[in-house]
Amino acid sequence: MITIVVGTNRRRSKSKQVALFYQKLLSDLNAESQLLDIADLPDDFIRSALYENNGKNESFNTYRQMMQESDKYVFIVPEYNNSYPGALKVFIDGLSYPSELLHKKAALVGISDGVQGGALALSHLNDVFNYLGMNVLAQRVKIPFMKKNFLDGEIKDGLIDKLIREQAELLVKF
Amino acid sequence: MITIVVGTNRRRSKSKQVALFYQKLLSDLNAESQLLDIADLPDDFIRSALYENNGKNESFNTYRQMMQESDKYVFIVPEYNNSYPGALKVFIDGLSYPSELLHKKAALVGISDGVQGGALALSHLNDVFNYLGMNVLAQRVKIPFMKKNFLDGEIKDGLIDKLIREQAELLVKF
Amino acid sequence: MITIVVGTNRRRSKSKQVALFYQKLLSDLNAESQLLDIADLPDDFIRSALYENNGKNESFNTYRQMMQESDKYVFIVPEYNNSYPGALKVFIDGLSYPSELLHKKAALVGISDGVQGGALALSHLNDVFNYLGMNVLAQRVKIPFMKKNFLDGEIKDGLIDKLIREQAELLVKF
Amino acid sequence: MITIVVGTNRRRSKSKQVALFYQKLLSDLNAESQLLDIADLPDDFIRSALYENNGKNESFNTYRQMMQESDKYVFIVPEYNNSYPGALKVFIDGLSYPSELLHKKAALVGISDGVQGGALALSHLNDVFNYLGMNVLAQRVKIPFMKKNFLDGEIKDGLIDKLIREQAELLVKF
Repeated sequence: MITIVVGTNRRRSKSKQVALFYQKLLSDLNAESQLLDIADLPDDFIRSALYENNGKNESFNTYRQMMQESDKYVFIVPEYNNSYPGALKVFIDGLSYPSELLHKKAALVGISDGVQGGALALSHLNDVFNYLGMNVLAQRVKIPFMKKNFLDGEIKDGLIDKLIREQAELLVKF
Repeated sequence: MITIVVGTNRRRSKSKQVALFYQKLLSDLNAESQLLDIADLPDDFIRSALYENNGKNESFNTYRQMMQESDKYVFIVPEYNNSYPGALKVFIDGLSYPSELLHKKAALVGISDGVQGGALALSHLNDVFNYLGMNVLAQRVKIPFMKKNFLDGEIKDGLIDKLIREQAELLVKF
Repeated sequence: MITIVVGTNRRRSKSKQVALFYQKLLSDLNAESQLLDIADLPDDFIRSALYENNGKNESFNTYRQMMQESDKYVFIVPEYNNSYPGALKVFIDGLSYPSELLHKKAALVGISDGVQGGALALSHLNDVFNYLGMNVLAQRVKIPFMKKNFLDGEIKDGLIDKLIREQAELLVKF
Repeated sequence: MITIVVGTNRRRSKSKQVALFYQKLLSDLNAESQLLDIADLPDDFIRSALYENNGKNESFNTYRQMMQESDKYVFIVPEYNNSYPGALKVFIDGLSYPSELLHKKAALVGISDGVQGGALALSHLNDVFNYLGMNVLAQRVKIPFMKKNFLDGEIKDGLIDKLIREQAELLVKF
């Protein structure tokens, strides 16, 4: 099972649309997947699922369970202030220790309205996942200029479309 | 006014103790400072102070105001999963755009129970602050092995103690 | 004195053209500057100026002297394999210890034929300079798509042109 | 074939000693390996093997051939100025394009006399290798305080010794 993580708690995010697009790619490759949208986490999970409350928030644990049951992940990561969203990191900070992610595998997709496509965000996140023992696919995909490059649920730039399809194939084989 | 940001929402954190220690250093240099503890933010600020709610959460705005009134900052940054805490980034993601931090100045202190002292965390955070237009003092201070190196509100390692005092002086002059 | 470092040893590089453009910007601000082109270093400086030979290569020492006499720098950094050029880092590795750069100030310009404009390269270099105690201006300028954005010795993209002029002014005041 | 790259051109480096130690680990796992010491490259390879000379330096090409024939690598990376050595990056900059490293696999070992063990160096290098399409094992090993932790060709710290043996096993299976 591959879990596609929508990496922001913004409601109705573009990241979710990209996640749905990615799910179609995986379906075409006969790979089973499920969506985990950070926006669905409890509004106070930054307090109610961390530290002394780690593991005690039943609603949060549902999502943790989804992570545990998967062996591969796709992270859709919007660029917030030249890094990953704080909300995505809080979710990771609320997982178990030792991590559910140990010896698992992930693919990273960065998105932005600006020019970078989350270049720094993916680098930072790679450091986090390596620390947790999760192997990250070399091929990071970046989608800059989202308003132009992602319309009607599809990637409009030919090269990026090719790269993300390659990435999905590589993840299935990883 | 220098604001010392306690970079986690963990209650009664070691980061807060280090912040109190830093406040004494600044006081000895006749520099006025105040503490801003991320743990004091509303439990649901990840939802109630971001996106469509940005700027509308009165409690959160109190802390934003503290940031606006300052021209220099110290960030005490515990290492969480080889980066900065998600909670600290959510706080930054909830600030204004254009940023309160533009053309301001900051000093970074990383802490950890392990060997690294937040080396990666401070690098990631530096990328964020540079993007927001805030100059970051070159001298990053790292306090690894907190249980040994920070006791009774004081730094026990002579070299680290020297470096953090130098940093405080450099910040005042920065 | 501001030294503008051409951050590659490629001969007749685009980086050098950007450096010459930057020198005009500084001249317009009445700031004195000089160019240091890594391409002018001895062909074997990777061996003859490092380790047991550190400080003993007279030709290399000429450039080291230029660095010592300056208090501010501009680094023009082409993106090579998603980081800074190895040649630029060898030059830095061949400087003195403690570093000539301690308590100096720098501005970073990244350039690339592709989309990124050296985003990662500048982040990596920032880590190096912070370690050496040199304050780096927050405003990093990136020039992606050089073939389109830099023609006839001038920046053709209006926003990037505005940003690099702002950066030059900030550096003079830094 | 696994190539173990000694990531500096310093002669008789500690990195080489660590590489020899790693070769024993791989031999114990019945994995064939060879050493590639950056110190053996021609003294002027920064000029004679790059740009217009790329692929034309017969001596350099011998080492490029070693890289091409391998499908896995170990990089021993001493920390120089808070990043990887310039010499290692020049070697990478002198490889072919598209890269010999595409779809290959690597393990990273950082070493330092100081506290960090190359934490930032390995992060930077990971960005380079991901760009070149080479998958990097999540488990990065860091050996800080080399003078204490690495004596007589062996790792003296029990935890680090365990981690590097785990890494070697993971690389063989990667």
